[in-house]
Amino acid sequence: MAAGFATLPLPPYYVVAFSSQRTTGDNGYGAMADAMLELALQQPGCLGAESARSPDGFGITNAYFADEAAILAWKNHARHLGAQKLGQERWYEHYELRIARVERAYSGPEGR
Amino acid sequence: MAAGFATLPLPPYYVVAFSSQRTTGDNGYGAMADAMLELALQQPGCLGAESARSPDGFGITNAYFADEAAILAWKNHARHLGAQKLGQERWYEHYELRIARVERAYSGPEGR
Repeated sequence: MAAGFATLPLPPYYVVAFSSQRTTGDNGYGAMADAMLELALQQPGCLGAESARSPDGFGITNAYFADEAAILAWKNHARHLGAQKLGQERWYEHYELRIARVERAYSGPEGR
Repeated sequence: MAAGFATLPLPPYYVVAFSSQRTTGDNGYGAMADAMLELALQQPGCLGAESARSPDGFGITNAYFADEAAILAWKNHARHLGAQKLGQERWYEHYELRIARVERAYSGPEGR
């Protein structure tokens, strides 16, 4: 399995699906994104995260949490609040965030 | 709003979160991915989809459906079954698929 995949427990758990269009230029984004991922993964109830960003700046991060309390705690983490503010001011042209309860999961391809 | 975003109704609805690591080389993948996206969006109950793939071949597609019946119908669509088989044989080194019920959604940044 490639390094990009999160290793998750059996459902149920939660996913925070964050789609974003980046503004032009790095402006400190890359370093902050790395730091926030590392910090998130240290939080109780954060199960893992997966990210992809196309060369046109459209990206998706799916972050996985054990429950709603863990999502709320991460949302309100002091360092994350600072990053969210910079995201709104500098880094994101637009974003959409959906919070969903994972009910089933599969992987593949089997048999190769 | 950039073109990459899906315009969705208010929750609840479902997301099929598909993370994948591509094999090397196109091998017909790009054309099939475009065709499957177009076909999916024509299905009743398919609300939209968002995709990103990093240059290293790791990608996420979040596809949105009205309900479980719509997810199942798309899973079993004849042309999609053919594409899934090629995906397993040729295009994906590995994939993870999670099916989740979206409970809340937000967008931003507000006020810019």
